[in-house]
Amino acid sequence: MTEERIVTAALLVIGDEILSGRTKDQNIGFIAEHLTNIGIRLKEVRVVPDIEDDIADAVNALRRRYTYVFTTGGIGPTHDDITADSIGKAFSARVGVDPRAEKILRDYYAEKGLELTGARLRMARIPEGAELVDNPVSAAPGFRLENVIVMAGIPSIMQAMLAAVTPSLATGSKLLSLAISIDRAESEIAAAFSAHQKLYPDVTMGSYPFMRDGRYAVELVLRCADQARLDEAAATLKRALGV
Amino acid sequence: MTEERIVTAALLVIGDEILSGRTKDQNIGFIAEHLTNIGIRLKEVRVVPDIEDDIADAVNALRRRYTYVFTTGGIGPTHDDITADSIGKAFSARVGVDPRAEKILRDYYAEKGLELTGARLRMARIPEGAELVDNPVSAAPGFRLENVIVMAGIPSIMQAMLAAVTPSLATGSKLLSLAISIDRAESEIAAAFSAHQKLYPDVTMGSYPFMRDGRYAVELVLRCADQARLDEAAATLKRALGV
Repeated sequence: MTEERIVTAALLVIGDEILSGRTKDQNIGFIAEHLTNIGIRLKEVRVVPDIEDDIADAVNALRRRYTYVFTTGGIGPTHDDITADSIGKAFSARVGVDPRAEKILRDYYAEKGLELTGARLRMARIPEGAELVDNPVSAAPGFRLENVIVMAGIPSIMQAMLAAVTPSLATGSKLLSLAISIDRAESEIAAAFSAHQKLYPDVTMGSYPFMRDGRYAVELVLRCADQARLDEAAATLKRALGV
Repeated sequence: MTEERIVTAALLVIGDEILSGRTKDQNIGFIAEHLTNIGIRLKEVRVVPDIEDDIADAVNALRRRYTYVFTTGGIGPTHDDITADSIGKAFSARVGVDPRAEKILRDYYAEKGLELTGARLRMARIPEGAELVDNPVSAAPGFRLENVIVMAGIPSIMQAMLAAVTPSLATGSKLLSLAISIDRAESEIAAAFSAHQKLYPDVTMGSYPFMRDGRYAVELVLRCADQARLDEAAATLKRALGV
C-alpha cells in the first residue's frame, strides 16, 4: 500500500459585493472542482469584507493551517482594491511597485497606445518576496507569497491565473468520488446507508437530498482515494438498497 | 440625526459537497441579499467540512463576533448530518430528541401513512434550550439556540425557514446602495473614483469590473445608510465622470 499524501487548501474570497448579495459568487464552485480534480483538498472557504485587518487575520489563520491559501478579488486599480496591502500586512512584508509587474503593464498599455497612469501602476504593487502569477487575459498579474496565491475576482481572469499557477502546485492523492442517485426520500434509505458507512470506515459517505419533478430524491456520494475500494463499497451499497 | 443601529451576521455553510465542488452553493447569494434587504449586514461567510470540531470551532468564533450566525446544511436523517451535535458541542448543551420536534414529525409521517423510524426521529434531535424554527416544506424543523440559527441545506427548505425566522430578528439601519454602470475600463475611471471616495468618507464606494459584449465595463457601487447622502454622492460622481 502506497503512502497517501494529502495536500490541502483554503479559499479566501475578498468582496463586499458578495456579502451584500449584489454579486453572486461564481468562483467558489469552479475552484473547488478544479482543486479536487488535481488532487488538492479544499478544506475551508471564507468570504470577508474589503477591510485590511479582516483580510490579514483570515490569511494568517488559514495559511498556517493548510498547504495553500487561494484568494480572489481586490487586485484592481481602484482605492477599494486592498488585497496586496492586506497580504503585505499579514506577512509584515513591504508593498511597493514591482519592477517586473511594472514592465508587464508598461508593455501591455504601450501596445494599446495607452498611458501607464498612476491608477494602472497601482496594479503593479506587490508585496516584497512574491513571485508573479501570469495573467494572459488582461496583463495585471496575480502573485504568490509563500503558500498564499492571490488571484483576480473576475471569473475569466481568475480561471486563467489558476491555470497558470497549477503546474507549480504540489498535489496529493486524489479523493475519488462516485455518486448513486435514487428516487426515494432520504429518510427511507438512512438506516441502511448509515449501516453501510460503518462497514467501510475508510470510505466517506454523504447523502444529499434534492427535489426531482417535485418529489424528493437523494444522491449518495462515496469518496475514497482508492478506486478498487470505492467500487466495492458502491457495489455492495447498491445491493443493500436494491438499486 | 438618528442614531444608527448596526445588526450584523455571519453565515456558516456546512458541507463537504460544496468543498468538493460536486454541489454548487445556491444559498450564500440568497441569504446575503435577504439579510441586506431587511437591515442585517452579512460580514463573513465560512464553508466548513462535515467535521464536528470544525463546525463547533467556527460557530464559537462567529457567534461571539456577530449579532447572528446562520448555518445551512447537515440537519437531515443520515449519519453525515451532524450539525445538531456540533452546535451542542459548541454550546456544551445536551442534544436529544426534542418532544416538540418529535410531535411535529410524528404528525407529519402519520398523515402520510408512514412510520416514524429511528432515522426520521434523528431529525428531532435538538440541543437543549433551543427554540424550533418552522419548516413548512417538509416538517423537520430547524432551530435557534441563543444567536445561532440552524437551517436546512436544500435551498427551498432553507428559504422557507429563513422566512419563518425573519419576523423574530432584530434589524438595524439598512445599508442602501446605488449602482452606476459604465462602459469603460476600470483603470480609466480609477483616479476620479478614488478622489470622489475621499470627498464622501461616509459613503463606501466599490468598483466591480466585468465583461460586456467582450469589452471591459465597470459597475460603481455606492453604499450608505442615508438616502439623501447616497443620492448626492451618486449625482456628483456622475458629473465628475461625465456620465
